Amino acid sequence: MSQVQNSIRPKLLATLAGEVFERPPVWFMRQAGRSLPEYLELRSRAKDFIAFCFNPEMAAEATLQPMRRFPLDAAIVFADILLIPQALGQDVWFEAGEGPRLGELPDLGLMRDRIESSTAFLANIGETLRRVRAELEPERALIGFAGAPWTVATYMIEGRGSDRSRARTYAYQHPEKLDELLEILVDSTARYLVMQARSGAQVLKLFESWAEGLAEDVFQRIVINPHKAVIERVRAAGIDAPFIGFPRGAGALVANYAAQVPVQAVALDTQAPIALGKSIQSGGKAIQGALDNLLLRSGGPALDARVDALIEAWSDGPYIFNLGHGVLPDTPIAHLERTIRRVTGR
Amino acid sequence: MSQVQNSIRPKLLATLAGEVFERPPVWFMRQAGRSLPEYLELRSRAKDFIAFCFNPEMAAEATLQPMRRFPLDAAIVFADILLIPQALGQDVWFEAGEGPRLGELPDLGLMRDRIESSTAFLANIGETLRRVRAELEPERALIGFAGAPWTVATYMIEGRGSDRSRARTYAYQHPEKLDELLEILVDSTARYLVMQARSGAQVLKLFESWAEGLAEDVFQRIVINPHKAVIERVRAAGIDAPFIGFPRGAGALVANYAAQVPVQAVALDTQAPIALGKSIQSGGKAIQGALDNLLLRSGGPALDARVDALIEAWSDGPYIFNLGHGVLPDTPIAHLERTIRRVTGR
Repeated sequence: MSQVQNSIRPKLLATLAGEVFERPPVWFMRQAGRSLPEYLELRSRAKDFIAFCFNPEMAAEATLQPMRRFPLDAAIVFADILLIPQALGQDVWFEAGEGPRLGELPDLGLMRDRIESSTAFLANIGETLRRVRAELEPERALIGFAGAPWTVATYMIEGRGSDRSRARTYAYQHPEKLDELLEILVDSTARYLVMQARSGAQVLKLFESWAEGLAEDVFQRIVINPHKAVIERVRAAGIDAPFIGFPRGAGALVANYAAQVPVQAVALDTQAPIALGKSIQSGGKAIQGALDNLLLRSGGPALDARVDALIEAWSDGPYIFNLGHGVLPDTPIAHLERTIRRVTGR
Repeated sequence: MSQVQNSIRPKLLATLAGEVFERPPVWFMRQAGRSLPEYLELRSRAKDFIAFCFNPEMAAEATLQPMRRFPLDAAIVFADILLIPQALGQDVWFEAGEGPRLGELPDLGLMRDRIESSTAFLANIGETLRRVRAELEPERALIGFAGAPWTVATYMIEGRGSDRSRARTYAYQHPEKLDELLEILVDSTARYLVMQARSGAQVLKLFESWAEGLAEDVFQRIVINPHKAVIERVRAAGIDAPFIGFPRGAGALVANYAAQVPVQAVALDTQAPIALGKSIQSGGKAIQGALDNLLLRSGGPALDARVDALIEAWSDGPYIFNLGHGVLPDTPIAHLERTIRRVTGR
């Protein structure tokens, strides 16, 4: 990398390469959408949420809105983890105020036949990334993402968000079928992420939103192994973009995850102890997180104190400031501004 | 303790005192109720669930039903964690199929005034314990329990089971009020447990059902500190019954809990890694858990294999075989029988 490129290397990428800053780079999960009035206005122009995600003009605008408003170190492409099931032939729609709904799980053979074409089906997300990268300043990183195979499988099996007990039971009662479904998702997800990297994503994030409540042996089989497989396939395609893995709710199993999955950073949820983060840093990975989104929404001196405490605790090693979960819809913008100022010192 | 008493010391109590057995003692959370047809018949005779809990004849019968059916090492008194709010003056009722509902949170001063009388209000639970102890064989232990202060507070604040986001927000926005509520609950819970021990409970269990999703500093303040305070007060009253603490969903923070709370055993939930259990045992405490209740319901060779794996992993130290959560209502009785046979070898 030349001097010139180095001088504008985004702070997020430097951190993912192991560099340590007194003030960490900062971005927020769900920084685009929900909490921003300009997003709500934009969103009202699309007929439904899926159509919005597939519209590169609108999705690029939604991605960039928080970047105009806040001095964030990274943009994350506006998309949804349930675009993959749709690309594999399962109906997906959103009930207003109730979250996602999915049609019947397609036959595994039919889904396997659709893997090849799934990336083309998702081409518009690549176009969104190209548009965002063209507008985004070079010192700000662009993150692409996908839902991790198990999390996506829970929605595909249950047909909606839930306590995942049907999906977890499926994991026990139909292990071969689940393994086949996860393999289909590993393959399509890896292709999707390769396409995102080739379209301008400089960082790839795997969201395992439902890693909670899994026994250690099950976690190994349905979380750790598929994450490793996705990353191996992306690397085999010649993509060297750093990965952030987010095993949300994995508790003490986060240590197993960090030890085995070749991500460059582990995103930590709200309940991750300080010591766990430090031990992941000592093991050679960056960490990201873990401010409570309820505290960000609540604000006040407790918010300031916790922001300071996290930076104090973790900025001896590579650390990306973020939440432990997404920004809540009714989070005051002033709290986001104040927190970013506190992190950046600007 | 004399030789004779020693010879009939319940295996559960021996384990809680640090003794190690090739085959661990076994009991199941929610072994009474729900999954048993004789319970459903009995329950249909009471007008509502709260009335059932306050009826010593019925509650003792429900406690003993699984003891007649299965060779379990312990009975746990049939009661509910929401009897304490009722004793403090908050209305509690159960909507069929929907779980608990609570009336408005009473004024803190009024609740404080009721602490003294709350134990008398709960006297029938003592009577249940006396009846059970009189019928239970001496080699089988009797467990009393209470909800831990934070978990009970979440119901009191939210008025129902939920994702606890209102209660967690309350913890940030009204820290002094929450601390006062927790202090009221520490006091009333300690008195309640002392009464249970004096009525025949040989082991006391604190259920922190909603320890999940808390940041480390909040966990210290609203979980660890109140648990320590409850146990200190019970000890100050001259009760030396061993404690089992169950910080369900606490993830990696279970290590903080085990290091600081003077329980004799830590109950582990489904996602607790084997290594975490071993490290708690090395630290001088027994562990309990952590079979997935979905796997118990599913059955089959995967259940047998996991039962064997848990015993293999943990029975080098003091270990109590149990689930990571309660028995699910539609768990086949044959799966309970099979699992108990596998644990006991009988």
